Amino acid sequence: MELLKERIRKEGKILPGNIVKVDGFLNHRIDVPLMEQIAQEFRRVFAGKDITLVLTAEASGIALATICAQAFGVPMVFAKKAKSDNIEGGLYQSEIFSYTYKKKVTLIVAQEWIKPTDRVLIIDDFMANGYAMRGLIDIVNKAGAELAGIGVAVEKGFQRGGDSLREEGYNIHSLAIIDEANEHHIRFREGT
Amino acid sequence: MELLKERIRKEGKILPGNIVKVDGFLNHRIDVPLMEQIAQEFRRVFAGKDITLVLTAEASGIALATICAQAFGVPMVFAKKAKSDNIEGGLYQSEIFSYTYKKKVTLIVAQEWIKPTDRVLIIDDFMANGYAMRGLIDIVNKAGAELAGIGVAVEKGFQRGGDSLREEGYNIHSLAIIDEANEHHIRFREGT
Repeated sequence: MELLKERIRKEGKILPGNIVKVDGFLNHRIDVPLMEQIAQEFRRVFAGKDITLVLTAEASGIALATICAQAFGVPMVFAKKAKSDNIEGGLYQSEIFSYTYKKKVTLIVAQEWIKPTDRVLIIDDFMANGYAMRGLIDIVNKAGAELAGIGVAVEKGFQRGGDSLREEGYNIHSLAIIDEANEHHIRFREGT
Repeated sequence: MELLKERIRKEGKILPGNIVKVDGFLNHRIDVPLMEQIAQEFRRVFAGKDITLVLTAEASGIALATICAQAFGVPMVFAKKAKSDNIEGGLYQSEIFSYTYKKKVTLIVAQEWIKPTDRVLIIDDFMANGYAMRGLIDIVNKAGAELAGIGVAVEKGFQRGGDSLREEGYNIHSLAIIDEANEHHIRFREGT
C-alpha cells in the first residue's frame, strides 16, 4: 500500500537492532484518517469473506482493529494479556512469548465473545516473529470459529514470522512488508 | 446518556465486590456503533473547545478514544503502561497505582506527541478511583498543554474518583454514573 510505505519512509525511524518505529501514526499517536484508508484496503482484500468479527491483541492493535471493525460493520474483540495467574474460568487462552515484556504472557478472550459460527478477521498493526499472531490463531481455533483472514499493517519481513505462516497456508495480507531496514535505507518487498 | 444506561442495565454484570462488568460492549468486545454514539455525545458536550488531541491510557480506553478522535477530526494518543524500569528518554511520565495489576505502573507518553499548543480531551471508558485519570492529567500538565475537558463513558460514582476531581474544578463529563450497584439493582446518578 503505497500511502503507508510513504509514511514509513518519511516518518518511520530505524533504531539500532532493526527496530522500526512508527509510533507517530500507527501505535502511539494514531492518525485516524490513515487507519480509515488501511481499513478500506482490508475491506477490498477480504471482500466476500463474510467477516463477522475482528480480533486483535492489546494494546497497539486496538486502534486499527476498531476502525477495521467499523469498516466491516462488525464488532471488535481484543485479546487481553494476562500478567497474573489470577485468570478466571470461561476463557480461551494461549500462551505466547512477548518481546515487549521479555517474558511469557497469556492471551485471553472470554468464551462468550467468539462463537463457533464466527468468521474471524485477525487484524494487527505490526508483525515481526509472529508469536502474538500465532496466539490469536490458536484462540480462533479453540473457539471452533473460522479464520477468514489475517490483515497486518506493517510486517518486518526479515524476521520471517509472516513467511512461516504463509508457508503453512494462512491467508495473510500485509500492507507494507519491510525486507531490510537500517539507518541508511529501508527496502519494502515488491507487491506491497 | 439513556442509551448507554440501557445497555448497562441489560447487559452489564455486577460481580461481588461492586465490580461492574461491561465487557460485552465497552472494554473487551467493542460495539463500534455504540462507540460512535458516545463520541457524538462528547462532541456535543465539548463543542467549541477547539480540541486538537484525544488522550487515553492503554488498553481498554483505546477503542473509544479512537472513535472520539475520529468524531473530532484530531489524532489520538494513548499513554503506555511501562512495566519495566527500562524507560528511554524524551517521555512524559506519571506513576499511578493500577488496580488491574495491583501495583504501581508508570504511564508514559513520548514528548513529541503532546505539544504545549495542544488542547487535550482526555477520554476513558471507565473511571473508578480516578488514579489513571490523575496520571493522564499529570501528563497533560507536564507537557504544558491545555486540558480542554475529560470525557468518561462509565463512572463508578460510589468510588468517588470523579467527584474528587469535580470538587477540584476539573471539567469532567461522565455519560453514566453508577452510584449504587449490587446483584439486585443498579442506580444511576440523576442527570446522567
